[in-house]
Amino acid sequence: MRDVAVIGVSQTKFGELWDVSFRDMITEAGLGAIEDAGVEGADLDAMYVGNMSAGLFIKQEHISSLIADHAGLTPIPSTRVEAACASGGLALRSGIMAVASGYHDIVIAAGVEKMTDVVDPTPAIATASDQEWEAQQGVTFPSLYAMMARRHMYEYGTTREQLAMVSVINHENASNNPRAQFPMKVTVEQVMNSTMVADPLRLLDCSPISDGAAAVILCPADMAREYTDTPVYVKASAQASGTIALHDRRDITRIDATVNAARNAFKMAKLTPGDIDLVEVHDCFSINGILAVEDLGFVEKGEGGRAFEDGMTRIDGDIPVNPSGGLKARGHPLGATGIAQAAEVVWQLRGEAGKRQVEGAEIGMTHNIGGTGGTAAVHIFSR
Amino acid sequence: MRDVAVIGVSQTKFGELWDVSFRDMITEAGLGAIEDAGVEGADLDAMYVGNMSAGLFIKQEHISSLIADHAGLTPIPSTRVEAACASGGLALRSGIMAVASGYHDIVIAAGVEKMTDVVDPTPAIATASDQEWEAQQGVTFPSLYAMMARRHMYEYGTTREQLAMVSVINHENASNNPRAQFPMKVTVEQVMNSTMVADPLRLLDCSPISDGAAAVILCPADMAREYTDTPVYVKASAQASGTIALHDRRDITRIDATVNAARNAFKMAKLTPGDIDLVEVHDCFSINGILAVEDLGFVEKGEGGRAFEDGMTRIDGDIPVNPSGGLKARGHPLGATGIAQAAEVVWQLRGEAGKRQVEGAEIGMTHNIGGTGGTAAVHIFSR
Repeated sequence: MRDVAVIGVSQTKFGELWDVSFRDMITEAGLGAIEDAGVEGADLDAMYVGNMSAGLFIKQEHISSLIADHAGLTPIPSTRVEAACASGGLALRSGIMAVASGYHDIVIAAGVEKMTDVVDPTPAIATASDQEWEAQQGVTFPSLYAMMARRHMYEYGTTREQLAMVSVINHENASNNPRAQFPMKVTVEQVMNSTMVADPLRLLDCSPISDGAAAVILCPADMAREYTDTPVYVKASAQASGTIALHDRRDITRIDATVNAARNAFKMAKLTPGDIDLVEVHDCFSINGILAVEDLGFVEKGEGGRAFEDGMTRIDGDIPVNPSGGLKARGHPLGATGIAQAAEVVWQLRGEAGKRQVEGAEIGMTHNIGGTGGTAAVHIFSR
Repeated sequence: MRDVAVIGVSQTKFGELWDVSFRDMITEAGLGAIEDAGVEGADLDAMYVGNMSAGLFIKQEHISSLIADHAGLTPIPSTRVEAACASGGLALRSGIMAVASGYHDIVIAAGVEKMTDVVDPTPAIATASDQEWEAQQGVTFPSLYAMMARRHMYEYGTTREQLAMVSVINHENASNNPRAQFPMKVTVEQVMNSTMVADPLRLLDCSPISDGAAAVILCPADMAREYTDTPVYVKASAQASGTIALHDRRDITRIDATVNAARNAFKMAKLTPGDIDLVEVHDCFSINGILAVEDLGFVEKGEGGRAFEDGMTRIDGDIPVNPSGGLKARGHPLGATGIAQAAEVVWQLRGEAGKRQVEGAEIGMTHNIGGTGGTAAVHIFSR
């Protein structure tokens, strides 16, 4: 197995990008990564794109061909990978395998979602849950995560204020991220007084509907210094599946797919949670920030709320979580998120994260999940 | 790069499977392949599933998790791969890379599509074309391929009868395939008198709307004999992209993605077209059978019609094409097709194809395309 490095990254501004089309958005991200890596389009050997549902959002499947075509990259192999909101993480993993296998050398792994061109994105998002047992019954993602939050509060005494702190810290970090959708600070009071969505989750507990794209360029580790003085190495790429429907789980206060993917990632990297300098977690709802730090092994089960309350997860804390602002404040264009997480970790490990820089960061992790945890992808990177 | 072998294959009956759900269909195919390979579900390390549009056909994305869950295979990594009608071929290629890279040992690569649970599948299928420049203008796949057919007739004198022969031979072969959707023979007259769909293509020039699933089990070549006495080896896995929109091509009588993927496949396998004993080609419309034998290099450009007319492509001909019955007569559940093609080649190379057996077949090829050729995947297998 060949070792793999990241030599270029890019992310578009996330937001309601009504004046930018799907194909222009992903091409902008791709060109940004190509420029960042100092390669030419003609150097690329293959492309992997994470996208959850262009079929439902813009009536376009076969986006792999569309993008290769629009970006002028034909005839390179171009593949779309999908696992709901974990699509980006899986595109990254597919790209890593393409390089590791020796099939391809320079690979672009990208992610994109255009969510604001439909009147109501909710039915499309709901297709990440079990259509027959969940979505068709009217269950939506805020309500699924609300049940997980309610149970976590019951089991472990997690408080409404602790949930709010996940959003507060995310927005604090996002205020220093020019690519974030919502780069403004919020207070605990603002979160707790925001519109109720699904009790106990309020509007400011929920990640937004976003358009956006991101891309990374991968190559064999032993070629990386030909292109950059600051290569970032892939230490682990792990993925696990879990039940798609929430009711099939023995325990809805933990996401087994995260637990399994994290275990495999740490094993592959020969590292432990204590070695990680920062982590980008999948906080589609505030409760998921809390579940993530527990399930990834940074704190004991039930201690996640306290970790956010005590400031342990701030940029200057023991385990900085989401220096980018996370899904909550950077935004969450579904298929782009897993790639944007990797881009943030790369900027952090290169020391290029400006005011949101985690000092001396050497090892970073990304955690990307699909649905309520039917899929999880965990990656570890090092300087 | 590790060499890869196929140790088990399976295909459900293709057809209008109104009494079988999406999840049951793919589980049936997966269990069939597991049984054929003589492995246990617990032996599987990862799953790749090709599917074009469960989002539009059954309002379900995140099928990777759904299938792992329903089949009792969690927590193994499960990934959906999509490139329209080439989704199966790309799932196969992703599975091959997963093994070749050393990330996983025993991998199931499957494909599935449930197309008959909607009133009209046409809008979903049309998302394989360029939505903005083709589908939104009312162009559908029969009309796109009709333009390609008309131009081929104009450029090379291809006749209406030659087009019909593609369907005639496919149905002849399918009549010996118990898994085929339409296992009955048709005559040239029947094809030429069938309902006009898009001039010059008539109903019997068109592949049907199908439900179905197929699966193959992959493992490192040096482990294959632990599981089977009849391993089939992957000699090449190649993929290329082309423009998604037809009007962007310099020549609509050839599919550049096929040409490029085939060139790379032959190079990787160190073989030439003359070495291939049988080929499963992507004949979604009769014209595409003709384009395929030309673009894959079996005959000169413009000679494809004659190849079918002269019987060169019959099971006992120089280059047997689609012993399975092809997309036309075996059926074309979009995401399953690329995997079903591989399953047929494996049965042929094992000598298990019954009355449709190509005598002494040692090397076989599959050719799977997406849209009008925005994607092509070509694989070569040997005994």
